[in-house]
Formats: sequence, C-alpha cells, structure tokens
Amino acid sequence: MISLPDSVRVVEMLPRDGLQRLDRFVPTDQKISMVNDLAATGVDEVEVTSFTHPKAVPNLRDADEVAAGIDRYEGVTYRALVPNGVGAERAVDAGVDKVNALTTVSETYCRKNQGMTTEENLDALRDVVEVAHGSGLEVEAGIATSFFCPYEGQIPQERTLSVLDAAVEAGVDEVTLATSMGMANPVQVDRMLDAVFERYPDLDVGLHLHDTNGMSLANTLVAMQAGVDRFDTSVCGLGGGVILAEGLSGVGNTPTEDLLLMCREMGLDFGAEFDAVADVAESIRERLDLPATSHLLMGGTPEAVLENA
Amino acid sequence: MISLPDSVRVVEMLPRDGLQRLDRFVPTDQKISMVNDLAATGVDEVEVTSFTHPKAVPNLRDADEVAAGIDRYEGVTYRALVPNGVGAERAVDAGVDKVNALTTVSETYCRKNQGMTTEENLDALRDVVEVAHGSGLEVEAGIATSFFCPYEGQIPQERTLSVLDAAVEAGVDEVTLATSMGMANPVQVDRMLDAVFERYPDLDVGLHLHDTNGMSLANTLVAMQAGVDRFDTSVCGLGGGVILAEGLSGVGNTPTEDLLLMCREMGLDFGAEFDAVADVAESIRERLDLPATSHLLMGGTPEAVLENA
Repeated sequence: MISLPDSVRVVEMLPRDGLQRLDRFVPTDQKISMVNDLAATGVDEVEVTSFTHPKAVPNLRDADEVAAGIDRYEGVTYRALVPNGVGAERAVDAGVDKVNALTTVSETYCRKNQGMTTEENLDALRDVVEVAHGSGLEVEAGIATSFFCPYEGQIPQERTLSVLDAAVEAGVDEVTLATSMGMANPVQVDRMLDAVFERYPDLDVGLHLHDTNGMSLANTLVAMQAGVDRFDTSVCGLGGGVILAEGLSGVGNTPTEDLLLMCREMGLDFGAEFDAVADVAESIRERLDLPATSHLLMGGTPEAVLENA
Repeated sequence: MISLPDSVRVVEMLPRDGLQRLDRFVPTDQKISMVNDLAATGVDEVEVTSFTHPKAVPNLRDADEVAAGIDRYEGVTYRALVPNGVGAERAVDAGVDKVNALTTVSETYCRKNQGMTTEENLDALRDVVEVAHGSGLEVEAGIATSFFCPYEGQIPQERTLSVLDAAVEAGVDEVTLATSMGMANPVQVDRMLDAVFERYPDLDVGLHLHDTNGMSLANTLVAMQAGVDRFDTSVCGLGGGVILAEGLSGVGNTPTEDLLLMCREMGLDFGAEFDAVADVAESIRERLDLPATSHLLMGGTPEAVLENA
C-alpha cells in the first residue's frame, strides 16, 4: 500500500511563471487583482513576480509596482523570483517574505535563459542568500532543468545533485527541483529524490511541476511517496519558459486546480479552499481569455460528471 | 524506491471504446484498416468491436463484418466486447481469440447502459463464460463503474469486490477494473488493488483507463506498483460512454501513446513498437478529423522538445 503525506503545500505560480511569457503584457492593476484573488483562496504561497531585468522579462517589468500594490493575506507567504543579488535587493525593498533564487543545471539553458555560466549562476545564488538572509528573507533555490534541458536533453542525475549540493552549501532554506520542460518521468523523479534524501534527510525539497508529457501528476504521486509535500503549480496550467511559449500548445505548468483535485480525492489536506481555487481558476481563465486546458475546467470533477449525467 | 513491473501489456481500445459513441458511423472498410494498422504496431491485444445489439450501439452494427474482414497478425490477441451469451456466440462465429464480458457494478448504470439488473448481468456473464470456454475462447471480465458511477457517485469498494468475486467464481480467465468515468484517484486504486490481490494473489488483473480527471497516469503508476501490468487504452484518447460523449470535451480513454511514452521513458518493455504507435495515432487522428488531445500528439516527447528548441 502506498504511503503519502497527510497534507501538502502549494506554491501558486500564475503571477510569475504563468504571465512571464504570455503573448501580451497584463496591466499592473490586473496582476495585483490576480495575486489578491489567489492569496484569498488560502493558498500557502504565491510567487508574485520576478525581479529580473525588464529587458529579460518585459512582461514582468512592473515587478516593483506589483509587489508594492498587493494586499497581504495572513498565513500566505509572498515569494518572488530573483536571478541575482540586484534582484534580491529589489525583493527586499519590495517587502516579500521569500525569494526563489533561480539556479540552473544545464550550461546551455543557463547561458540562453540567464546569460551566464552555471558557475556565475552559483555565484549569483550566494549573493542572493547573503542579501536575502541579511534582511530576514527566506531563500528557496529553484533548480531549473533538474531533469531535462531543451538543448542538452536528459540531465545526468549527478549534475543536478552537484548544483543542489552547492545550493545547500550556500545556505538556502529549501530547494525545489524544477521539471522545467515538463519532460520528467516517475522513475527519474523517484531515483532523484532517493539520492537527494539520502544526502539530506531533513532538507525541505519541493517539486516545480510542468506537464508537457502528461506525467506530472504521476511524478507528483511518486514525489509524495518519497516524502515531498511542497509543489509549484499554476492555475489554468498557464506557464512555461521561452520554448513552450513558442512551440507547443496546451502544455505549461501543472494546473493548481488539478493537483488540488487529486489531493482532495485522495483525502490529503491542503491550505487553499478547493472551491475558491476552482472559481479563481475559471475567473482568471476568462480574464486572460485562455482555453480551458485543466481537467477541472473541462469538467473533470465528480460533481460535474454527476451533474452531467 | 518504487518497484515496477519489467514490462506491460496494452490492450488497444480505439476500434471499440473509441468508435462506439463517436458522432458518426465509421465505414466498415475504414474500421478494418484501423484495426490492421493498430495490430501491425505489435500491440499485445486489440478490442476489435462489440457484439452488442445494433440498436444499442449503432456505430458498431457492422461487428461481424469487421471481425471477418481484418487480418490476423501473429502475436496479437483479438478481443471483442460481448454483453451476453448471444454476443458470445457471435464472437465465436467471428473467430476472435478472447471476449470482454461486460460486467457492471452500479445498478443504475447497468440498467441505463445494458438494460438489465446487475444480477441479470452476472447471469449473462455466466452464459458468456459457458459459450466462450466451450469454444476455446478466453474470457476477460471488464468490470464497469468499478470506482465511480455517473448516476450513483462513488462506488463502495465492497460492491466492486462482490462483483469481482462473482466473475472469478464464474470462471473468467482475467479481470479488468474499469475507471469508466475517468474519476478514480490513486489512493482509491491502490486500496482496491490491495484488497483484490489479498483475495486473489494470482489473478490476472488489468486496469481499463479513462482520464476525465487527469489522474490516469498516476493511477497507472500506482497499479503498476501493486503488480498490475495490463492496461486498456485508446490511441488519440478517443473513447468513453454515453455521458462523456454528450457532455465533456477532451476527456476519453487514456491515450495509448501517452501510456507507452511513460513506459518508454521509465525503461519498461512493451509489445508495440513505439514509433509505429505514434505514427498510427497521428494517422487515425487525421482520418477521424480529431483534435490533438494526447500529450504525445501535442508535442510532448523529448524528441519534439529538442527539435523545437
């Protein structure tokens, strides 16, 4: 019989991963309203924006205004992505609770996506930790291309582990393995987590979920069995890097509402109120004029099936 | 670390579950060509058609012609769905290798879908076993609504187990639990299989996969961990009963190509040739003018992502 955690923590990625490569700039007031609506569901954590150079991610060039404009719901952790120490300083000024220190395993991806080598990336990570911890912010290292790179293909496990080692050594508070291209498979996730927990039995390890290959809920289940209880997802499944935005349709982050549906059906606890998340997902889908790509939004709940019958 | 079977067997459901509620009648010669193309991939088993009353499933009213017209690839098992002894006799005459004896747990679903009580259904199952075994055909009991019914909601585990008991007692060769509405969750599947294998450690148990809630590959993984190595899927994800056909979009059987992609990525063996299945899925998608709903057809393979980058 499988063994799962009693409860899971969800990090809502829509405002950052969802909007960063959308085909348009979403006005600042709309972004603020989305963050507030998502936080109001009681979700554990929201990645609010990215303190990147405006030219690198023009869609999020209003990061400071967004962070300054949002309400602060009690019990919700407000996190922002930062690529370096400068970004971390902006995050501190903006008053977020936590930073996601972008860390990449693939050399090619790191160069194309962040314009630096992985060694420079690790230096930047150390800067982020210094700045953030110096101001009392938590640091999570989000490790991009932990499993697969769109340029290099499969990433050998030992390369991801060596980046993770460096992040732990830098003093991050938690680590998140990102299935950046959504190409990870359950055996790969299982083997990776086994190796991670063998090295660091008490490390707070999360999984950043994309679903290009349709295996993300299977990956989630395997991760839960290994002891992971923290997952990054995005309502409506919106999200993904430059590759996904250009080439593929219907494949982004794992939809938050689908992860929570699985948790609810399996009897696991989670911070957000389920019906509220479903409502916000539908509302954001309408506001952004997206097709319904999550299973929940396509009617894949017991309630919808019973109503249809 | 999770433990999985070394290899899996796949039963291709497109010709029966995929076509039965399609919005049009597919001409007999096209059906024959699809069955042949699917069998040519080396898939373990194909459910060719359904020997049901033509008025019940008009789309498959040419069952006898289809079964008579197809080629017979060596190593491929040709199976047909039969609802009763009369259907089993037609299946015997048509020369298939195996019958899927439709068996339903939900009283309401059984009445609406098969026009009989579940008791009458079990009588019919016994007739099927007698006829089929009398002619040397294998019998698989496909147990519909094993987890969830669109009219009655969640199905208590003990009701499914009692139907399974009756099927075993009737002498079937194997049993397949059907997630008919695609609403099963991994914990439910895990608990069910635990109970089944506790009663019948050596029973050949399969899972018939629908994916309305997006959890079917997670369900598959849990079933594999429990020891199940036989799965019913349909190329392009086409399939589903009357409810799905009427109400919901994009949600049918689990796509064969997505199951095989997961198996391939995880290093499991399977009968079919992967690239051949991918090609046939795309070809059938075009022939039936379907949208691309499987992750593979949307570009969710490592090869496609690398090519796109």
